[in-house]
Amino acid sequence: MTVTQIEPRSGVAFRLHEGQTLRVIDPKGTQVSDLLAYSAADVREVISNGRTFDYEETIALTTGNRLWSNRSQPMLSIVEDTAGRHDFLLTPCSEATFRHFYPDQPVHRGCFGNLAEALEPYGVEPDMIPCAFNLFMNVPVAADGNLQVDPPTSRPGDYIRLRAEMDLIIGLTACSAYASNGGSFKPIQYEVETEAAHLS
Amino acid sequence: MTVTQIEPRSGVAFRLHEGQTLRVIDPKGTQVSDLLAYSAADVREVISNGRTFDYEETIALTTGNRLWSNRSQPMLSIVEDTAGRHDFLLTPCSEATFRHFYPDQPVHRGCFGNLAEALEPYGVEPDMIPCAFNLFMNVPVAADGNLQVDPPTSRPGDYIRLRAEMDLIIGLTACSAYASNGGSFKPIQYEVETEAAHLS
Repeated sequence: MTVTQIEPRSGVAFRLHEGQTLRVIDPKGTQVSDLLAYSAADVREVISNGRTFDYEETIALTTGNRLWSNRSQPMLSIVEDTAGRHDFLLTPCSEATFRHFYPDQPVHRGCFGNLAEALEPYGVEPDMIPCAFNLFMNVPVAADGNLQVDPPTSRPGDYIRLRAEMDLIIGLTACSAYASNGGSFKPIQYEVETEAAHLS
Repeated sequence: MTVTQIEPRSGVAFRLHEGQTLRVIDPKGTQVSDLLAYSAADVREVISNGRTFDYEETIALTTGNRLWSNRSQPMLSIVEDTAGRHDFLLTPCSEATFRHFYPDQPVHRGCFGNLAEALEPYGVEPDMIPCAFNLFMNVPVAADGNLQVDPPTSRPGDYIRLRAEMDLIIGLTACSAYASNGGSFKPIQYEVETEAAHLS
């Protein structure tokens, strides 16, 4: 089992085969990782927050929940989750969101730009990037519907394990936005477990 | 000003020019209407619940809020809203959602199928249909994140007015799902107001 590190404010893409499990780790705590999933057979099939909210009947997704595609197919099952708090409401940070929320800071291409570059070799165009499943992101929604972006509650070493329910292309980042990560940018780590390795 | 009726469980698509205002009416009350918006210049630019939640900082959208595109541009501004309750969390009902939620009822193509057919002449493929802005839809989210689909609280004649901030292709339905509409299927009405007409 090899743990791969995603450096601060960067992103990667890779294949995840059906039955493999992806473990995403927040090694230092308080760090968000944006996760995207596309069907390897046809990247027009993509992870969908709306289909997921519909079928799972919750916006608070954790162990036991599945993440669904725009074609109503399960893509990933959350099989373990030591953090327990993630967000699926918001889109990846981008040049436009930096200009909007941080007008006094240098503009960064954000998770959106990092994902677009990493996914381009797989035939994913920028307009095909939907809401990401934002691991460890802490977005409380008040009773009146107002939302805010708070620092993640994840502690060093917290992780989430997701099993692929179909052959996937995964996009994964170490998030680049100030508020989402409690003001500092840290790495993310991940490893891909095959079913046999996990059972042994 | 011509009021057009969308018959129960059907949908339409039409152009809405920048500066025009779309008024969508629930003539009998307790009826949902799924709304989609695409840039007329390039239909790969599309309404985005995540970008909207991000910039508006709420999931409870009403008068004064704007609906944003995946390219971080304002598409529509809500300028009047007598209903005050809409949903932007869930995807349009479809054959798959009918099979999932209503296994004992006949399968219907739902808002998804109605929107796909109406939008096809504009170059919109089914996979390009995201979460709709679900007018009059009542989806309370509990403190623990669980959501449920309750009957709309809209009364006969309630309406919402949205001003186009760019040239748009609009998709609009009278929703086909049981729970979303309190168990019965009713028409939706709409009219397009030009700026001059509204001021006169």
